[in-house]
This record gives sequence, C-alpha cells and structure tokens, in this order.
Amino acid sequence: MRITDLEVVPIAFRDPPLLNSSGVHEPLALRCVLRLHTEDGVVGLSEGPGDRASLDRLAAVRESVRGMSVFATTLIARAVDAALPGAREVDRAAAFSLIEVACLDVQGKVLGLPVSELLGGRVRDAVPYAAYLFYKWAGHPGEADDEWGEALDPDGIVRQARRMIDAYGFGSIKLKGGVFPPEQEIAAIRALRAAFPEHPLRIDPNCAWTPETGRRVAEELDGVLEYLEDPSPGVDGMAAVARAAGMPLASNMCVHSFGTLAPAVARGAVHVVLSDHHYWGGLRRTQHLATLCEAFGLGLSMHSNSHLGISLAAMTHLAASIPHLGYACDTHYPWNAADDVVVPGALRFEDGAVPVPTGPGLGVELDEAALARLHRAYTESGRQVRDDTGYMRRFRPDFDPALPRW
Amino acid sequence: MRITDLEVVPIAFRDPPLLNSSGVHEPLALRCVLRLHTEDGVVGLSEGPGDRASLDRLAAVRESVRGMSVFATTLIARAVDAALPGAREVDRAAAFSLIEVACLDVQGKVLGLPVSELLGGRVRDAVPYAAYLFYKWAGHPGEADDEWGEALDPDGIVRQARRMIDAYGFGSIKLKGGVFPPEQEIAAIRALRAAFPEHPLRIDPNCAWTPETGRRVAEELDGVLEYLEDPSPGVDGMAAVARAAGMPLASNMCVHSFGTLAPAVARGAVHVVLSDHHYWGGLRRTQHLATLCEAFGLGLSMHSNSHLGISLAAMTHLAASIPHLGYACDTHYPWNAADDVVVPGALRFEDGAVPVPTGPGLGVELDEAALARLHRAYTESGRQVRDDTGYMRRFRPDFDPALPRW
Ligand SMILES: [Mg+2]
Ligand SMILES: [Mg+2]
Repeated sequence: MRITDLEVVPIAFRDPPLLNSSGVHEPLALRCVLRLHTEDGVVGLSEGPGDRASLDRLAAVRESVRGMSVFATTLIARAVDAALPGAREVDRAAAFSLIEVACLDVQGKVLGLPVSELLGGRVRDAVPYAAYLFYKWAGHPGEADDEWGEALDPDGIVRQARRMIDAYGFGSIKLKGGVFPPEQEIAAIRALRAAFPEHPLRIDPNCAWTPETGRRVAEELDGVLEYLEDPSPGVDGMAAVARAAGMPLASNMCVHSFGTLAPAVARGAVHVVLSDHHYWGGLRRTQHLATLCEAFGLGLSMHSNSHLGISLAAMTHLAASIPHLGYACDTHYPWNAADDVVVPGALRFEDGAVPVPTGPGLGVELDEAALARLHRAYTESGRQVRDDTGYMRRFRPDFDPALPRW
Repeated sequence: MRITDLEVVPIAFRDPPLLNSSGVHEPLALRCVLRLHTEDGVVGLSEGPGDRASLDRLAAVRESVRGMSVFATTLIARAVDAALPGAREVDRAAAFSLIEVACLDVQGKVLGLPVSELLGGRVRDAVPYAAYLFYKWAGHPGEADDEWGEALDPDGIVRQARRMIDAYGFGSIKLKGGVFPPEQEIAAIRALRAAFPEHPLRIDPNCAWTPETGRRVAEELDGVLEYLEDPSPGVDGMAAVARAAGMPLASNMCVHSFGTLAPAVARGAVHVVLSDHHYWGGLRRTQHLATLCEAFGLGLSMHSNSHLGISLAAMTHLAASIPHLGYACDTHYPWNAADDVVVPGALRFEDGAVPVPTGPGLGVELDEAALARLHRAYTESGRQVRDDTGYMRRFRPDFDPALPRW
C-alpha cells in the first residue's frame, strides 16, 4: 500500500479574539488538511499547522515520500529528515506527523479498524478534555460581538467557564493566562475555584512570569491548582519555580521534543509533559513519549493549538490508547468548531469527553464543501503566518511582547 | 481478528557446557514455543523462556486474553498485568512479550507484510550479530567432546572465535567472562585483539567483579573494548566503575525494565542499554525503549539468552526497525542452531548478519517434527528450571556462586 501523493490544502477558519502573552488571536486561524493518496485509491486524512513555513516543509518532502509504504513510517520519518536539512527537530517532527497520522488513517481504513485499535486498543471509551478559557475581547475590533462575549476580569472568566461547561460538560478547567498582572489572574483562579469547587484547575501564562513571580503565584495557589503550566521561560526558570512550588509544573514550551527532555529531567524543571502529536512526530512517537514519561515518573497531559475535527479525532484516538495519560486534554475545539471540515456526527462531547470514533481509521469524513470554503477563505485572506503580536499592535501600538513581563 | 487460545509448548534442546559466573549451562536448555490461535485460523508464533515459573505465568493469563483482538496489545498487556498480581515488572513484561510477538506475527500474516514493516519498516536489510564466545569444557562430563571443543584459556578462546567467525562471518566479538580471575580474562581479550585487530570487542563478567576490580579492568582495557558489560552489581557498583572507565558501560542486569532506567540514568551508571524484547514487553515496547535511549543519550544494543529461530526472527525484525541500534546484537544461536524448531531456509547468516526475513509476519515456519521432538526431550528430561549453579556443583561441589567474586 504505497503513497502516490500528498495533497496539502491550506485552510483558514474563524477564530475569536483570544488573548495571550504574545498578543491576540487574529480573525482567521491557519491550518492545513492533508489528503494522502495511495495506489489503491484509499485516501488518508490529517490536519496540521497552516503557516507558510509548515507548508513549505511539506512541499519539500512531497517527492521524497512518493512510493513509500504507509506502514513504513520510520522510513518516512527518515525521508522527511533528509528532505529538510537544517530544520529544527520539532519542525521535522511536525512535517512527519502530518504524514504519519494520514498513514494510520489509511491503515485503519484498509483493515477496517479504528486508529485507536492500531495503536494498541483504547483503554478508555471516551477522552476527557478540559474547558480551555481565554481572556478575550467581546469581538474582533470593528466587528459585532461574538457569541462568547467579553472576558477581561474574574467575573467574565467565570461566565465563560459556565457557558462552556454548560455546552460541553467539561470536568476540568484551564485558563490561558499571561495577559493581566498575576494578582488579577490569581483572582480569576480563585473565582473559578469558588464557582466550580470540584473542577481541577490549571493556568498557563506562557512564560509571562519571572521565576520569582512564578514562585509567588505557586505559593498563593498552592492547593488550588492541579498543575501550573509554563510559568517562566527556559529550563532554568522552570527549575527555579519547581523548587518552591507545591503543585506539579507542566510544560509544552521548555519541553517540546525528545531532545529537550533530558535537560529538563536532570534539572527537575518539569513534572507533567504536555504532549502534542502534531510536533512530537505523530501518534506512535507520542506513545513512545508516554512510556518515557512513565519510566521517569513524569505525568502526561496533552497540549492543543487552534484546530478542527481531524486533529480532534487523532488526539482522541491517541489519548484513548495511552494508559499513562492522567489529565483531561487541552482542546481549542469549542472556539473553532463552527467551521469544522469534517462531516458532523462522528465527533461529539458527552460530559466533557469525546467518545472515541469507532469507524475505520480516524473515523471522520471530510466535508468537501466545507474544505473548499475554508480553502477559499485562506486564499482570499492572503495570510501566511500567525501573528498575534502584530494583530495586537494594530490596536495597542505600544504592546511589547517581551517575556517575562511580570 | 480475535485470540481463541494460547497453545504453549515447552521444549528442551541441546546446549554445550558454557561457563559463566553462576556456573555452567546444563545439557538441555529450556524454552517454549507459543502458537497463538485466532478465530480465523491464522496462527501466530513466538518463543520465550521455558522454566516452570514462566510457563505458570502463561497458564495464568491464558483465559484472560481469549477473545481479545490481536491488534489491542495494550489491552492485552493490561489483562496480563491483572492476571499476574504481585509479579515483578520484568516477569509480567516477559509473559506479555510472548503474546505480543505472536500477535504481530498474525497481523503480518493477515496483511501479507513482514513484522519489520509493521514496526515502521526496516532501516537495514540485514542485522549484524556478534560472535558470542564462552569459556567452556570440551563436552558435558561423561559425554564425548562437542564440535566446539575446550576453551579454558586465551588460546582456546581465540580458537573458538576463529571457528565461529569462519562459520558465520561475525564482525564483532563478545566474551562471556566472570569465569576466571580478571587477569586471565584480560589476557583473553588481548589475545582476541591480536588475532582480530579490527573486530569491536566486549566482555561481560555478569557482575563478577567488585567496583574496584571493575575500575582496574576498565583501565587495563581502555582503548580495547567497544563497551564493558555489567562489570559490577547494582547501580552503585556500575556508577563507581563508570566514573573511572574510559569506555561505555553496558547492562542487561542493573537495567532490565522501564522501572530500572531512571535511577541508572540519574547516577550515570549505564551508557548502553542491552535491550531484549523477551522481557522489555515485546517488540513495540522495545522501540519505545530505543526512543528513550536516544532522548537520554544512551546507546542501544541487544541481549540474548539461549534461543532458537523464532526468537532470532523476532530479534532480527525488531533490530532492523530501530535506527538508534548502534551495535551488533548478541545471539546464542550458533550454540543451539542444530536443534532449531523452524523450517530451514528463512534464516541465515551472511557476513555475520541475518538478512531480515521478507515473508509475512515473522517469516518463519514451524517444523512440526522438530517441535514434537524437542517437546518430547522436555518431557523426558523432567527438567523445570535452569540451574547453572547446581549443575556446576555436581562436578565442583565447592563452587560458590556469590558475586562479586574478584
Ligand atoms: Mg501551554
Ligand atoms: Mg549480559
């Protein structure tokens, strides 16, 4: 079962003005859909980043993987590496991941088995996700308010949480922080704790805090947070916070590839690794990561970027297959689900969890009309990169993205 | 594709009087062959330990895995764990491994693909093995000399090496040590270096040396050994040798399961992990180990116990699939090949390497007559356990197996 072509379709979909330490989400998020064609006519799907550099890397590997077996994923990874000399590990792994997921989709379709079964079987029938809260403006400047409305203080965050939990049933909550001074974000966490006394809580300021501030927040939120995500930059910064923190520190920033693990482990900088198959080299490599985390006493959770249903399906099959995964996974899906590229029905949330699709492969089908529409949106937008900082500066010209900020 | 039954056939095959730090190999080595039956009539093969305790563990898990999918290996591992409460990690992993390899054999047969392809494709077409030299008696006491003859000094070891390399073409050499005082074994290594100036050399005394002795041997053989295997007992002993050794230290004794890795890494006790799918939980889990070793800057080689062709096929598919494997693998095969249970033809050595079988699954076929003969040998022997020490004491009643010895 050999690959005949990679058909990469860049897309753009609506994204609310979500705030983070780098700025604010633009009105359109970029992504791409891969249709992996095989000699037998079976088509494998996957979804990944849609920025220019990612698309260029996929174009650079396209010829190299033609003719390769969809089972020979290690050989495909080597071909990708060879086609991307000088690329960072995480970027090579991201290009490979897109292909690997589509290969597994093909394998599953050929065998009539869900990807979770190819990955060793599902240890849970539904994968719990967390409510992913963001400080946000009421709507993009110059546009009407979106359905979620404004969230710029503790009350707004609690309102957003309630809306999202009412709609999806999430049993855990993550707040994207790094937007307001730490005191205000601590107040938001306390307000969430008061409103949702049983929900595990996390905050992720994306390295907006100095280690000193990180230690202070950790102390103030001791006993309140399930884990504290990327409070401070670098292994040194994280290690400095970790020495004083009562809760585990999680990271997708100082640990983001296999090459970054050993230093973080040696320094005790990270206790929970936030996996993401999109840049850890696909589903099987993320299973390797899970074994590694288990062996080294590290917890495992899952990171997300803005994404649609093909990625949600892949994340769900993967998470279902990993016994060691001990936390509700992150997902941006509620923010972007209205523009999905998959035919409705295969994916749904029940009590905050996505039942693992049981159809062959990823178990999702491409909505061709939606894909065409989102590809048109991409083309018409002229957008090539994600630029949260530039977009923010259009409205706050003095915005300084330098971190740590507090 | 569901499992209908595990058919475990214990076997015994001839083994020469190979010496090690625990005593001497008995005339018969014990092993078992698993025939994993599925609802569609496809039968998966694998091979593993044949001692009483291993067979009892397989009997204990037999009912639990009936009805499970051959793809759902993580669920099978959990069923095995549940059926073996209180068993050590390495023993649970060994029971699971036997099933996992047979499941992969079934998968490959169903798909018409070799196991190496299921594992991500072969990064090498043939897997290099090392000449595995042993001090040995000329024959078992009371029997005629075997074809290999005596090897009790450096000359005998060089003679054995020459014979084995002439027959198999091995390009690396491992000496099982821990039998004679270190000075004599150092002399044997020096004699091998003189006779085979280009062959990478290793010695494995199986923890027969105190750390002080280990350090001294490391110093004397600096620049001569590719790696030094298990010179001294425990993480502390290995770490003490490692601090002074110029060559990498390898281990299958202080690191033998995922739970033993973190302490060894933290102490810098081991530089090369000697993998063995038979007790690391099968082929895919050994791939996880390879990723872990790569991430932590550890080398990877492969350990062997006395085995026949089904294991050799599994080892070869696995080794072919792992880019990070940087050394010729160990194998006892030349010592036991005369009694193989597989139909001749699929496995052969070319220049010290085994070409990866290309047939479906493991690519080997059971020789039913040989299996029946070896099972009869097992039954008639009445043997239940491997006892190198007890066998040695029949001839050297004062033999003391306590280690370290020097
Ligand atoms: Mg994060
Ligand atoms: Mg050894």
